[in-house]
Amino acid sequence: MLTYNLMEIEGSLYENLYRLIKEDIYSGKLKPNEKMPSKRMFATNLGVSTITVENAYEQLISEGYIYSKPKVGYFVSEISNIPKAKTQEKISLNIDTGNKEEDIFFDFSTNRIDAENFPFSIWAKILRDLISNHESDLMEMSPSTGIRKLREAIAEHLYSFRGMSVDPDQIIVGAGTEYLYGLLIKLLGKDRLYCVENPGYKKLFDIYKSYGVKCRLANVDSDGLMVSELRKTGAEIAHTSPNHHFPTGISMPIKRRYELLAWAGEKEERYIIEDDYDSEFRLNGKPIAPLQSIDENEKVIYMNTFSKTLASTIRISYMVLPPHLAKQYFEKLSFYSCTVSTFEQHTLATFIREGYLEKHINRMRLYYGKKRARVLELLKSTLDGECRVIENDSGLHFLMELKTDLSDEVIKEKLRKKGIKIVAVTDYDMSGKAKDNHRFILNYTNIDEGKLAEALNIVKQIMDNA
Amino acid sequence: MLTYNLMEIEGSLYENLYRLIKEDIYSGKLKPNEKMPSKRMFATNLGVSTITVENAYEQLISEGYIYSKPKVGYFVSEISNIPKAKTQEKISLNIDTGNKEEDIFFDFSTNRIDAENFPFSIWAKILRDLISNHESDLMEMSPSTGIRKLREAIAEHLYSFRGMSVDPDQIIVGAGTEYLYGLLIKLLGKDRLYCVENPGYKKLFDIYKSYGVKCRLANVDSDGLMVSELRKTGAEIAHTSPNHHFPTGISMPIKRRYELLAWAGEKEERYIIEDDYDSEFRLNGKPIAPLQSIDENEKVIYMNTFSKTLASTIRISYMVLPPHLAKQYFEKLSFYSCTVSTFEQHTLATFIREGYLEKHINRMRLYYGKKRARVLELLKSTLDGECRVIENDSGLHFLMELKTDLSDEVIKEKLRKKGIKIVAVTDYDMSGKAKDNHRFILNYTNIDEGKLAEALNIVKQIMDNA
Repeated sequence: MLTYNLMEIEGSLYENLYRLIKEDIYSGKLKPNEKMPSKRMFATNLGVSTITVENAYEQLISEGYIYSKPKVGYFVSEISNIPKAKTQEKISLNIDTGNKEEDIFFDFSTNRIDAENFPFSIWAKILRDLISNHESDLMEMSPSTGIRKLREAIAEHLYSFRGMSVDPDQIIVGAGTEYLYGLLIKLLGKDRLYCVENPGYKKLFDIYKSYGVKCRLANVDSDGLMVSELRKTGAEIAHTSPNHHFPTGISMPIKRRYELLAWAGEKEERYIIEDDYDSEFRLNGKPIAPLQSIDENEKVIYMNTFSKTLASTIRISYMVLPPHLAKQYFEKLSFYSCTVSTFEQHTLATFIREGYLEKHINRMRLYYGKKRARVLELLKSTLDGECRVIENDSGLHFLMELKTDLSDEVIKEKLRKKGIKIVAVTDYDMSGKAKDNHRFILNYTNIDEGKLAEALNIVKQIMDNA
Repeated sequence: MLTYNLMEIEGSLYENLYRLIKEDIYSGKLKPNEKMPSKRMFATNLGVSTITVENAYEQLISEGYIYSKPKVGYFVSEISNIPKAKTQEKISLNIDTGNKEEDIFFDFSTNRIDAENFPFSIWAKILRDLISNHESDLMEMSPSTGIRKLREAIAEHLYSFRGMSVDPDQIIVGAGTEYLYGLLIKLLGKDRLYCVENPGYKKLFDIYKSYGVKCRLANVDSDGLMVSELRKTGAEIAHTSPNHHFPTGISMPIKRRYELLAWAGEKEERYIIEDDYDSEFRLNGKPIAPLQSIDENEKVIYMNTFSKTLASTIRISYMVLPPHLAKQYFEKLSFYSCTVSTFEQHTLATFIREGYLEKHINRMRLYYGKKRARVLELLKSTLDGECRVIENDSGLHFLMELKTDLSDEVIKEKLRKKGIKIVAVTDYDMSGKAKDNHRFILNYTNIDEGKLAEALNIVKQIMDNA
C-alpha cells in the first residue's frame, strides 16, 4: 500500500500528505485512474487521523489531481499530459520606471506643495473623530458620484468661492481629474472630436489619445482659446482653462467667454470642459465668473480638484455636469463605484463644512502672496533689465521673459548642466511650429528662496556670457 | 462726470464700483468705446482713494469690460451684443439617483463588511504615526504605479498567501479594479475582443462595454470557464475567476487551468485576466495555486483588491502584469497619476508590513468560519430536506438550492413582498437562455443571524404553501 513518512517533514500533516501524493502523480508513480486507498485504511497505515487524509484528499480533489466516485472510492485524475507547475523564484524585473533621482540643485518647474503647509493636525483630528464616533458611516458604500455630504459641501464651496449655483446631484467626485476625463468620455462618447488648447498640458492630449478619442489642437491668443481656431478643427468638445490658462497664465475676457458659449450653443453635440484647476489662488482682485455660471444652455462641464488647494497627494477631484448630462450619468454610468475612499470623502466633507478649507485657502493665499512678492523682488534685484515678468494675477506661477538671443533649448541645456531644471512656454507647444519666445515658467509655490537667488545668478551668468 | 454713491452699499468699495460700472455697461449707459474717467479724477470725484478705482478698473480689464490704451486712458469694450449673465439661483435637480432606501427587512445578497470587523484602532494608530513622523512622505507624489513601499508589501503578501513571486515593478495600484480594467484596456488595446464568464458579474460586461470594447460571453460548466466555449467566441482576452467563480463558487481544477493557459499560449495577442477577488477567505484547505503562478508564458494578468479583506469603502486594488506588459505600461501609460492617495497607500503599506493584514485575515477567517457554521446549521434546522447547500469551500458565499416547483421569479417576487431581497444564480445569466435551477445566493459575511431564522421561516412558508 501507498506509504509515506509524514513525521520527518515540517508543516502540517495533511499538507505534507497532499504534496507527496501530488508529486507521485506528477512523477507517474501514481497512474491515471489508479484507485487511491480508502481514507480509513490509508490513515491507519500512515498512523494519522482520518481527518488528515480527508483534508489531503479534499485538497487534491479541489485542484483536480484526484476525483471521487460516490460509494466506490478515490481515483487519480488524467493529468499526465499537463506540464508541471514552474518553480516560483523571486524575480527582479529591472524596469526603467523613470523615477530616477536626477542631480537637480534647483527646479523652477516643480509645483509640489510644501508638507509644512498641509493642515495635518486638523485633518488628523477630523479623521480620528470619524473613526471614534462614525465608524459605520465609513463602512457605508459611497454612491457612484461620491457621498452626499461631500457633494453638498462642494456645492456650498462653489457657491461662496465661485458664485456657482449647483445641485449636489450635478457633482461627480472621483480620484483625480484624469479619471474624471475618462468618465466624461464614456458619457459623451468616444466618437466625438475633442480639442485642447495649444500651448497647453501635453498630458491632456496624451490622456485623450490613450482613451482612444480623436483630439485636435486650437491655438491660444492673448485672450485665450481662439474660437476661430476651434471652428477650424471641427471639434465638438472643447477643453479649456479660461480662468488661468496654462502655461501662459491668461484669463479669458468676458467677450471671448460669450463667444465660446455661443460656439457651443450652435450645435447640440457641442460641449465645453472648463478646467478651473487653481482658481482659488487668484491672488488679487475678484475671481472672474466661471463659464459654468454664465452658461444658459447646459453646455459647460466644470472640473476642479483639491490637489492645488490641499495636496497633490490627496486624490480628490470633481466635476459639475449640466443637469441633462447628470441625468444621463445616473442612467448610464452609475454602476461605477466611486474611486475615492469613504475615509477621505468624509474627512474632506467635514473639513469643508466646518470652514477649515476656507481658512486654509485664505492662509495659503496670504502665504503665496508674500512668497510671490519676495520672488518678484529677487527677480528684480538679480535680473533687472534682463527679464520681464509676465503674470496675469491669477494662479500659482508666472512667466519670466529673458532678454537674450540664446535659443530656449540652449538656455535649458546650459542650466541643466548647472543642475537647474527649467521649462519654457514653447515646451508646451504641441504643434511643432512654436517659435522661441524666451519665456520660462516660474512655479513659486514650493521654491526655496535661498537657493533661488543662487539659481537666478546662474541664469544671469549664462545670459551675460552669451 | 460718472458718479456713484459707494458708501451706502455693503461690501468693499472697489467691488461696488466694479459692479456699478459693469451694470452701466450692460444697461448701455456707458457706450462701447466711451472713454472712462482717469483714475485720479474719478477717485477725487467719488471721494475714494486712487487704489480703489485702480482695483475696480483692473478687475474690469481682466474680465474684458473695459480696455486700456497706454498713455491715453481707459475705454468701454464692445460687449453690447453679449447677453447678460444669468442670475444664479440655487437649483434643485431631483435626479433619480437610484439610492432610495427600499423597505427591506432582510437581504440575502448584501456583501457589505461589518463596521465592527474593520481594524479601526490600528488603522488610526498607523495614520496618526505617519502624520506625526512622516509628513513629507505623505506629500511626496506617488509614482503612477503606487508607492514602492506598498508594492513591496503587496509582493510579500502575494508570496506568503498565494505562493506568487512577483517583482514590485509588476504591480500597479489603483482605486478599485474597475479603474484598473480601464488601464488594462488602454494597455492591451480597445480593438481586442474580450470575453467574460456566463453566468457572472453583469457589471464586468457593462464595464467593458462602457469602455467601448467588444465583449462576448463564454459559458461555465462544473469545472469553470469552458475553453471550448471561449474558442467559439474568438476572443483574445479572457476574464475569469478560476479560484472562486461568482456566483457558482466553482474553483477551477488544475487540468482546466492548464487547458486555459494552453489556449492563451497559442497566440501572441491572447491574455487571461485572473480575477482573484476573495481568495484570502477560502475557509478550508490549502488555497489553490493561482494561474499567475503556473503561467510560464507571461499570459496572465492577476487582479485583486483589498475591498474584501479590509473594507469595500477603502478603494485600493492592484494588478500584477507579466514583465513585458509591465514594461509597456511604463513606456505608454506611466504619465497617469496613481488614483490612490498617499495617505492610504502609506497606511496600508505599514499595515501589511507590520503583519496586521495577516492577523486581520486570520481573525476574519475564524469569524467567517464560525458564522458560516451557524448559518449552515440554521439552514439545516429550518429547511432540512427542502434545501441543498452548494458550496465549494472557498469565498464568502454559498448557494441554496431550493426544492420547489416555483420559478425563480415567483420565489423572488413572493419574498420581495415580505421584505426579503434574494438573488438567484439565473440573475447572473447574461445569455437570456438560462433555465431556472432554484439556486439562490447566500452571502453570509454581514448577515444578521437573528433575522436569518425569521427570513428562512418565511422562505419555508412560501415553499410549503406552493
